[in-house]
Amino acid sequence: MAAELTAHELIARHRPTLDQALEAIRTRAYWSPHPEHPKAYGENGSLDMAAGKAAFDALHGTRIDLGQPGTDGWVEGETSPYGIETGVSYPHADLDELLPAMKAGVRAWRDAGAETRAVVCLEILKRISDRTMEFAQAVMHTSGQAFMMAFQAGGPHAQDRGMEAVAYAYVEQIRTPDTAEWTKPQGKRDPLALTKQFVPVPRGVALVIGCNTFPTWNGYPGLFASLATGNAVLVKPHPRAVLPLALTVQVARQVLTEAGFDANLVALAAERPGEGIAKTLATRPEIRVIDYTGSTEFGDWLESNARQAQVYTEKAGVNTVIVESTDDYKGMLANLAFSLSLYSGQMCTTPQNLLIPRDGITTDQGPKSFDEVAADLAKAVDGLLGDDARANALLGAIVNPDVKARLEAAAGLGEVALASREITHPEFPGAVVRTPVIVKLDGAKPDAEAAYMSECFGPVSFAVAVDSAGDAAELLRRTIREKGAMTVGAYTTSPEVEETVREVCLEEAAQLSLNLTGGVYVNQTAAFSDFHGSGGNPAANSALCDGAFVANRFRVVEVRREA
Amino acid sequence: MAAELTAHELIARHRPTLDQALEAIRTRAYWSPHPEHPKAYGENGSLDMAAGKAAFDALHGTRIDLGQPGTDGWVEGETSPYGIETGVSYPHADLDELLPAMKAGVRAWRDAGAETRAVVCLEILKRISDRTMEFAQAVMHTSGQAFMMAFQAGGPHAQDRGMEAVAYAYVEQIRTPDTAEWTKPQGKRDPLALTKQFVPVPRGVALVIGCNTFPTWNGYPGLFASLATGNAVLVKPHPRAVLPLALTVQVARQVLTEAGFDANLVALAAERPGEGIAKTLATRPEIRVIDYTGSTEFGDWLESNARQAQVYTEKAGVNTVIVESTDDYKGMLANLAFSLSLYSGQMCTTPQNLLIPRDGITTDQGPKSFDEVAADLAKAVDGLLGDDARANALLGAIVNPDVKARLEAAAGLGEVALASREITHPEFPGAVVRTPVIVKLDGAKPDAEAAYMSECFGPVSFAVAVDSAGDAAELLRRTIREKGAMTVGAYTTSPEVEETVREVCLEEAAQLSLNLTGGVYVNQTAAFSDFHGSGGNPAANSALCDGAFVANRFRVVEVRREA
Repeated sequence: MAAELTAHELIARHRPTLDQALEAIRTRAYWSPHPEHPKAYGENGSLDMAAGKAAFDALHGTRIDLGQPGTDGWVEGETSPYGIETGVSYPHADLDELLPAMKAGVRAWRDAGAETRAVVCLEILKRISDRTMEFAQAVMHTSGQAFMMAFQAGGPHAQDRGMEAVAYAYVEQIRTPDTAEWTKPQGKRDPLALTKQFVPVPRGVALVIGCNTFPTWNGYPGLFASLATGNAVLVKPHPRAVLPLALTVQVARQVLTEAGFDANLVALAAERPGEGIAKTLATRPEIRVIDYTGSTEFGDWLESNARQAQVYTEKAGVNTVIVESTDDYKGMLANLAFSLSLYSGQMCTTPQNLLIPRDGITTDQGPKSFDEVAADLAKAVDGLLGDDARANALLGAIVNPDVKARLEAAAGLGEVALASREITHPEFPGAVVRTPVIVKLDGAKPDAEAAYMSECFGPVSFAVAVDSAGDAAELLRRTIREKGAMTVGAYTTSPEVEETVREVCLEEAAQLSLNLTGGVYVNQTAAFSDFHGSGGNPAANSALCDGAFVANRFRVVEVRREA
Repeated sequence: MAAELTAHELIARHRPTLDQALEAIRTRAYWSPHPEHPKAYGENGSLDMAAGKAAFDALHGTRIDLGQPGTDGWVEGETSPYGIETGVSYPHADLDELLPAMKAGVRAWRDAGAETRAVVCLEILKRISDRTMEFAQAVMHTSGQAFMMAFQAGGPHAQDRGMEAVAYAYVEQIRTPDTAEWTKPQGKRDPLALTKQFVPVPRGVALVIGCNTFPTWNGYPGLFASLATGNAVLVKPHPRAVLPLALTVQVARQVLTEAGFDANLVALAAERPGEGIAKTLATRPEIRVIDYTGSTEFGDWLESNARQAQVYTEKAGVNTVIVESTDDYKGMLANLAFSLSLYSGQMCTTPQNLLIPRDGITTDQGPKSFDEVAADLAKAVDGLLGDDARANALLGAIVNPDVKARLEAAAGLGEVALASREITHPEFPGAVVRTPVIVKLDGAKPDAEAAYMSECFGPVSFAVAVDSAGDAAELLRRTIREKGAMTVGAYTTSPEVEETVREVCLEEAAQLSLNLTGGVYVNQTAAFSDFHGSGGNPAANSALCDGAFVANRFRVVEVRREA
């Protein structure tokens, strides 16, 4: 059967974009091919907001039949954090049938070469991009993100991270040429001459274990890095966030088929409630690469137990912001308030511990005491979220009852600087929407330490009183070393303090944002430019995206013979 | 104290070489800056053969005092496989003192940047290169290699592999720019603008666990990859092969000092007899990177237990050559005879199992039965090693009593096609020199399988009768998958058989040499062009040298602020 989409055609279509992506990861200047303004959708074959909503609504109560081998039943049960039941069902797989079937297409996929794989991946991303508004709904109703964020982070930003992984994967594979002529002089004798062929070969089947909060953003880098390096990819979504990844798998299977490859190179492994197939899957001998986003506990388990696989984890950390001094007090408060509020702090990058000298800080508005800073920050959050419509648009919904329980318990941990309040969602009365709580703690008190040295995922942050900037830096060091950190922020006008904090971050390998007072936030990273995580502290063993993230997903086999 | 060697000076001296190395790993054409002809030494400050021997002799009975912190005694006890006692002693380290001292210089080494680190490494290699003839003696009298091999493999080839690692490390670190200006358009509003700084940061202290047979060749890639990426490096040599690495550490410390860095960035951890410090060291929290060459058992232990570190292992495999047909029977026999004989087969790349159809093979000299092929190969080895002087020059000495015991036991495993014989070394009567044994086995018999499916390190090979080329390919697949392989060879004139074997090697990730009949051997790889191991089968989890070998030895920390 001739492919509907030839490699030639796909190269013509996507090579210019690939080249731009390659240039972007080299310069790390701003670049994105995926628009983040809703108005950009609805043209050139993409769905506009209404059409995306309609497509999502049309999925309700349907079965997403991917045509996968070994389908032995159907799984449903997703409930939106906004309270609606989509009633979508997904194939359940007999792994003993599905996994061997996934390997069948690997040889042709390998032989297609790095460039063809890259442009097939880019075609998948293009089809996903066209349906961004449908994915936005799917992400919103699984993660609980507010629509605008579900659209941006789950759509263009996730697609950016996927494309970034394709670019890294491609460039890594072409670092070694396809062939080489090797001629070694032998003095007066004839030279030794060999013809060498170098073939990137995949590891086998890769597993992506998705998360609840960012199914596409955190899922795409591993999915596309593994696929672009020649592996088959099995996607195991979080049981509460299946739809965005099921749609992704559906698109991938369709593009692979059209391009003349085996659809089973990408497959879905949805699970029955309580089935817990991740452990079983992760230790199957066929699984040679694993990408995981989620709890530290399970990430550590994977690193220790899935020894047959290359394991890439993004776990959890305790993120710190040091507040020492600022020449833009208002900007700092506004910036921090936004970071604490966005998606109810349910990001692995949200700051948790705000370290503030107990004697206060200097600002452009004069000295501010510890209590003033905490109160002013509380006011800033209140101001930001004072309007319910705006609050709903920023906060989204609490993703699960555990987060709600932690939020409720947090108020008992210390003096509350800002109490959480309940917000009603006009469209989705079932949504649990809460504003953040800020609790004051004394960094010197051992009982406080138990609180601020644990990850409290959700809209909870601690204003921690420290003795000095040096004390803050040492607590920062200890926090990163023991608990890990996806992000670190610092506000200081002192070159000495800045240098101290910077040195801690370099030594403990944590990503540092300094004095952010405008429209960029410590909890956000941009693909092609910012690294997400460092891979060098306990929060994650890899970074999105760098050479190390892709280089071991394939190996190079050399075939040499005399010339 | 001003550095005697400025970065500027070192860059002027070595940057052209670095650029050539970068070009070589990109094209993989032949290149080496280290001459492999003895006559090339003795000029431009390098020691000639006599001077090298004199320098080595002058070391006898001396103490190599590296001036390391925490030196709490002296270790000696190396005995040459050639029977001489050098009586050299080495510092023994108190790790609780040495390891913290090694970390002291890391910050300055990190801040020096990738290019300065690369040229300091190249200066170390240059000083080593100048003393190649001294190192040749040290390698010969620890590994048991014959002089010419100790000189070439332990000198220029090892230096090539070290430089290759420096080149990969350098290029990996500069893939991300030092700084970037990121400007994101915001429609009618002012763009968001950030200044970003990217800093490669080391993991910490790296550990190199050396081997007995190739202390420099197998030790240099990890040592230089870790050092060039900013780590401090602790070298733990094999207790029987300390001298070559002790001299290496000595040179490195001297160059580091002259270049204004802390000498303790490179240190030696020699051990007392039976002390077994590798396990202790490998699980110390300071140790964040480990390079190991040696037994599968300890390599697997490291991979499972040294969880705080990135672990790069080259373990053991069972190397196969499939002999199916040839159009150069004589060339094939000569080539194989050399591979089986070189260094008494004590290379991780030496073929062990020669799979030959039981119905014989076709050749340019007519059909040859299984027994004829075995007998002709035996004759070829006999011919190659018929002259004792030549035999001594090729075989070297048996490195330890275990190898000798395995060789002696091998004759009992089946019908002997070629018996091992004892050769006297005229200069070193204490040397244990043995020619290889070739034993015939029936691949279909279960009791034979126990022999050919185990690694029998040393001058032992098996001529294994198989049913067909297809049978051979399947046995090859199973051997690689279960036991690993550093090398695979095949002789065939059939495109179908070649394709089958090639496909097995691609699927199982093993490096394949086809129809070698001239002066290149399956057990040899050239730096800058050939990969040593694939990192994709059980023989090794990494390849020398590729992006994956260096990319995770450092991380990139980003510091961003508003522009």
